[in-house]
Amino acid sequence: MGMIGGGTGSFIGDVHRKAASIDGMIELVCGAFSSNAEKSIASGKALYLPEDRCYGSFEEMILKEKELPEGVRMDFVSIVTPNYMHFPPAKMALEHGFHVVSDKPMTLTLDEAIALEQLVENSGKLFALTHNYTGHPLVKQARAMVAKGDLGNIRKIQVQYLQGWLSTAVEKTGQKQASWRVDPKRSGIGGALGDIGTHAENLVEYISGLKIKELAADLGVFGEGRTLDDDGNLLLRMENGAKGTMSFSQIALGEENDLAIRVYGDKGSLEWHQENPNQLITHWLDKPVKIFTPNGNDLYDEALSVSRIPAGHPEGYLEAFATIYKNFATHLMAVLNGETIAKPDYPTVKDGVRGMQFIYASVESDKNNAAWTKLN
Amino acid sequence: MGMIGGGTGSFIGDVHRKAASIDGMIELVCGAFSSNAEKSIASGKALYLPEDRCYGSFEEMILKEKELPEGVRMDFVSIVTPNYMHFPPAKMALEHGFHVVSDKPMTLTLDEAIALEQLVENSGKLFALTHNYTGHPLVKQARAMVAKGDLGNIRKIQVQYLQGWLSTAVEKTGQKQASWRVDPKRSGIGGALGDIGTHAENLVEYISGLKIKELAADLGVFGEGRTLDDDGNLLLRMENGAKGTMSFSQIALGEENDLAIRVYGDKGSLEWHQENPNQLITHWLDKPVKIFTPNGNDLYDEALSVSRIPAGHPEGYLEAFATIYKNFATHLMAVLNGETIAKPDYPTVKDGVRGMQFIYASVESDKNNAAWTKLN
Amino acid sequence: MGMIGGGTGSFIGDVHRKAASIDGMIELVCGAFSSNAEKSIASGKALYLPEDRCYGSFEEMILKEKELPEGVRMDFVSIVTPNYMHFPPAKMALEHGFHVVSDKPMTLTLDEAIALEQLVENSGKLFALTHNYTGHPLVKQARAMVAKGDLGNIRKIQVQYLQGWLSTAVEKTGQKQASWRVDPKRSGIGGALGDIGTHAENLVEYISGLKIKELAADLGVFGEGRTLDDDGNLLLRMENGAKGTMSFSQIALGEENDLAIRVYGDKGSLEWHQENPNQLITHWLDKPVKIFTPNGNDLYDEALSVSRIPAGHPEGYLEAFATIYKNFATHLMAVLNGETIAKPDYPTVKDGVRGMQFIYASVESDKNNAAWTKLN
Amino acid sequence: MGMIGGGTGSFIGDVHRKAASIDGMIELVCGAFSSNAEKSIASGKALYLPEDRCYGSFEEMILKEKELPEGVRMDFVSIVTPNYMHFPPAKMALEHGFHVVSDKPMTLTLDEAIALEQLVENSGKLFALTHNYTGHPLVKQARAMVAKGDLGNIRKIQVQYLQGWLSTAVEKTGQKQASWRVDPKRSGIGGALGDIGTHAENLVEYISGLKIKELAADLGVFGEGRTLDDDGNLLLRMENGAKGTMSFSQIALGEENDLAIRVYGDKGSLEWHQENPNQLITHWLDKPVKIFTPNGNDLYDEALSVSRIPAGHPEGYLEAFATIYKNFATHLMAVLNGETIAKPDYPTVKDGVRGMQFIYASVESDKNNAAWTKLN
Repeated sequence: MGMIGGGTGSFIGDVHRKAASIDGMIELVCGAFSSNAEKSIASGKALYLPEDRCYGSFEEMILKEKELPEGVRMDFVSIVTPNYMHFPPAKMALEHGFHVVSDKPMTLTLDEAIALEQLVENSGKLFALTHNYTGHPLVKQARAMVAKGDLGNIRKIQVQYLQGWLSTAVEKTGQKQASWRVDPKRSGIGGALGDIGTHAENLVEYISGLKIKELAADLGVFGEGRTLDDDGNLLLRMENGAKGTMSFSQIALGEENDLAIRVYGDKGSLEWHQENPNQLITHWLDKPVKIFTPNGNDLYDEALSVSRIPAGHPEGYLEAFATIYKNFATHLMAVLNGETIAKPDYPTVKDGVRGMQFIYASVESDKNNAAWTKLN
Repeated sequence: MGMIGGGTGSFIGDVHRKAASIDGMIELVCGAFSSNAEKSIASGKALYLPEDRCYGSFEEMILKEKELPEGVRMDFVSIVTPNYMHFPPAKMALEHGFHVVSDKPMTLTLDEAIALEQLVENSGKLFALTHNYTGHPLVKQARAMVAKGDLGNIRKIQVQYLQGWLSTAVEKTGQKQASWRVDPKRSGIGGALGDIGTHAENLVEYISGLKIKELAADLGVFGEGRTLDDDGNLLLRMENGAKGTMSFSQIALGEENDLAIRVYGDKGSLEWHQENPNQLITHWLDKPVKIFTPNGNDLYDEALSVSRIPAGHPEGYLEAFATIYKNFATHLMAVLNGETIAKPDYPTVKDGVRGMQFIYASVESDKNNAAWTKLN
Repeated sequence: MGMIGGGTGSFIGDVHRKAASIDGMIELVCGAFSSNAEKSIASGKALYLPEDRCYGSFEEMILKEKELPEGVRMDFVSIVTPNYMHFPPAKMALEHGFHVVSDKPMTLTLDEAIALEQLVENSGKLFALTHNYTGHPLVKQARAMVAKGDLGNIRKIQVQYLQGWLSTAVEKTGQKQASWRVDPKRSGIGGALGDIGTHAENLVEYISGLKIKELAADLGVFGEGRTLDDDGNLLLRMENGAKGTMSFSQIALGEENDLAIRVYGDKGSLEWHQENPNQLITHWLDKPVKIFTPNGNDLYDEALSVSRIPAGHPEGYLEAFATIYKNFATHLMAVLNGETIAKPDYPTVKDGVRGMQFIYASVESDKNNAAWTKLN
Repeated sequence: MGMIGGGTGSFIGDVHRKAASIDGMIELVCGAFSSNAEKSIASGKALYLPEDRCYGSFEEMILKEKELPEGVRMDFVSIVTPNYMHFPPAKMALEHGFHVVSDKPMTLTLDEAIALEQLVENSGKLFALTHNYTGHPLVKQARAMVAKGDLGNIRKIQVQYLQGWLSTAVEKTGQKQASWRVDPKRSGIGGALGDIGTHAENLVEYISGLKIKELAADLGVFGEGRTLDDDGNLLLRMENGAKGTMSFSQIALGEENDLAIRVYGDKGSLEWHQENPNQLITHWLDKPVKIFTPNGNDLYDEALSVSRIPAGHPEGYLEAFATIYKNFATHLMAVLNGETIAKPDYPTVKDGVRGMQFIYASVESDKNNAAWTKLN
């Protein structure tokens, strides 16, 4: 793995590295951690990389690594830069024969997303998008329960992703994470919408197996001087007639990372909270509430196969993130060995396009005073 | 107290009686428990009432009680009938000099509500509407915290009221509670909207101290053969610029009575759940989460004054309901003694009008494909 | 009902009155609320009692009420005084033909308890002891599940009753509740042991259906200047070979009223918390956790029959307390009507004796450095 | 790192490897994964190790690695075998100049533990014992709060470690984890006592900063045919006069990994649950409950410094385990660089001796019918 972005002090770069390393399948071999060569080298050294594998730009990394012999050179790049810097390195990596893992939202614009989808298809290379929350064992259990019809026909969905860290103008204090997220040039047309709304959208479609048909979005800009949304409330209509709400925010003061979903069918319902990810609460007609736990009783293989440790030993954010890398690496090793794999289970370029469509539909709806807007 | 409706087998009549009796201030002295005189007498006898105070109609009760000497005759009526039968007895009671407690929604139509408001004003009599959830100590604490500015400017509100008991067609099984609720003639133009949506609306305005300015409502009718909504998703805009969502449902399978609210300000936020009413979760900039409990540490008088028992001894649905009756009775006794009272704290005819406006605005918005609709 | 003790400002007297009134079966008709006649009258008036039914002593009340005609005079006394004043009025009431409800622990001494058991038997009158926590629907569900063998053979029990209100020397501040509880003359040989330890003991035996065979008690006296225990830790051995722990405290700083129990069998296990009484958590071999709720799915009749309101509408401390009164009143009305009743379900004089045996065994064990001591 | 034990299918070997790799400081370079050379090689290959670094015995590994040049050879061994196989490789590794990480309990017998303490001291090498639960950020917060006096004088402690996986005779089904744990030859004189009781003991002393002075232990053997305890209930007396209880079990049916602790002082109290490790619940005189979260508001540096990701992103079992490795690796790197480090923060050989003393005292107490037994 060669990393693009994620120099010293980066939050998400560190997460990607830890997640990639947990299962012992992936080794960081090089990086363009910064567009400043000195900083890149300093970051790489702190990660025990040799100096000659620390590059001053992603272009240099891709070109030089390509020259290295197979088995030595990196197999794939991991892109952990701000949104505007997702597409260029992804494009170049694919064009030079490297597989790609990228952070979300996939690109700066919808056009880039559509172009990237084409690039991936043409290249025949693998592409994973780190919608990490789908890596949780109980999210997989939830998806499997819906898919097998346990809940019956889905009627109602509630999803929320609430954070409070932008309640005050932290972007004016020099906080790096904040400053690019409130800047349309680096973040795109969505603020919280792109940063966390896309996670909510992805989770809804992943668990329910249903597409959002149309939405009505009322975006909010509460932070003084901001131009991008830091809050949003949406009505959802799913392709099958189910209805729902979505709420996301980065000004929900005091919330840490409250991604939560409830799905109601006509036979059962389920509820999952990211902050307490080791419980899946389910309700049933005429039966008491049942609570599932990772590696606990009565789980489907889809959940059991991604649990690492016995029931009662909590898995968290990094483990779920690691599952994206693990499933990608498993697929990649099969490909490298000339094998095929039944159903690779990680978010792909299609999820990325979907996320960008969601952003664009939401912004359009909001401009039209929350008019219903189709998602495509 | 004389009760109208609430014969044997009634859920809400029994609740009103228990709630009225807890604090020892109110005595049930008569009732028109059924429009069938025999049934009314049987119901009254089971409640240890003398036969001659059990009436076959509310008209009879009001007329006959009026003939009884003061101190013997009922002081007020308690109306616990289905929605269509709220206005007629309330009107007649007021016109004959009786005070009124009524279940919600206040009337069958908005016109009735406006008429009733006028009747109450003209009569000079007291009128309480049993939006019982506002009786919880921690709901009062929440309201006080917002009112005193502890949370700063309110930016975001989430409210939900989720039940699952109409997930299947129980109205076809002869279940009484269900059959009138799905019938527009007895329920009005709102189904779940009127039954529980109005509670959610009332709670939002009570706690936040803010009016809902406009809403966008997407109502659902999921139960086969139903004509009234059994589900709804709304976007809210408050008078001060805050935004929010509301979701209510009676087809949220497995949910029992999940009324919950979250209010986010720019200094703090709070969260309260009816099913676990003895916790008020609050978040603060730079401080850990604080959880308040009834009669616990650091509460405002508004909350302390309605807690009946020491901290850690859970109060529930009936106690909160009782607080409406208690505060009404306290006001009534003051009035009967020719005294005045500073700020009577129970929902009034104005809350009832507000609830009917909410129902009408929601139905109108829904008809217009969830277009923004003003609430008045 | 005639009340003994419970004048204005009393916590537990008020609880008894509210609990007795909820179900509309019991009317407070007289009281000896204080040994000071004026105070007793003042208290009674505040409760809307006529002055001539407010007595200056329990002796006066019992004698004068006995003179009143049947149907007018009280049917039973409710004793809500400190421990030392339980036995004398109970004895006199029984001897004059009145039934008795008494607060716990039943008496000041074990000898009194044994004498009272004899008195009750000889009198043929009813006697209820307000171990109120056994009134919760889910406690009855728990008891029924064990009794029906759902959990298999019981192997392990954990019970705790933790409060923190005596963490500081509140008894020196004039706090009434505290001052008599730390005084051996009024409280007996047990402090927290008698006050709350007996509730824990009663709950263990009620739910498990098993007697405590022997115990090893390590009592603590942490409050400066106290002579009675304010904390205790016990090992338990049950008659069937099950083992367990009990912990109670009134110096567990910050705990409000944390009575909780866990019972483990070889087929299933259960967990119940008084502070969240509307959940019964159960575990099963090879099945997910199941959570029962009052009036929820799959309950036994034992639980359903004492739930007052629909699932999701929380019942609390007063309702459980009321169930003791309701079941006592149901039994009493049967007796008054010359009927019999299958299995009266409320704590009796035998539970009271058991509680005193528990206190005495614990104190003896503690004196012998926590040596195993039989419970009889 | 060279691993001893932990071949394919091992639970704890896999945990150690994942934990060691998360922070990118430690590389697995060799292993004696099995006493069967073929199996060891197969296990090593699955971990991407070269065949010549996969050894058929720990003796072979230690001797051969010692021959390799510095920088190539392993720096330390990680011992993840059953209890009886902890001491021999630890001893040999130390004697050949390797540092040691070992699973717990430290040795098979107390004598071995004392000998090992001497060996470590004489060798000057580092020794870490994986009492992994002390690696949680909020356990460090808890310890810091007690140490700084926030809770005042500690009066009461409750600790429990409840599992249910030995509720049935799984050791007879060929389950590897179970079979050695119920076998005194491989497990030592403690069953659940050694396996999980030692974790509870370590957590009590780590958080409270207090030594257990004496204990009274009532051990249970519930599984048919077992000779070692599978359950235990203890009374504790701490060196400062605090009292407490401990309960551990592997027959607490349905419990997954319920390690929990409550510590009560005279100024505050705290509560932590391993199954929900990202909450530290604290109580205060006159203040509401406060809940701390990793990387959340108002934490001490002791907790902040071991949190890896932002608040709201749950960390779990592996991350806490990893913190033991990380702190050990940090210390080791300092030593290798000839530097010193202020206060290395990981469990050492002294914790290991303490654990064995706890096992021996408990077994002795149990043999004497739970007589008080000093812990040394």
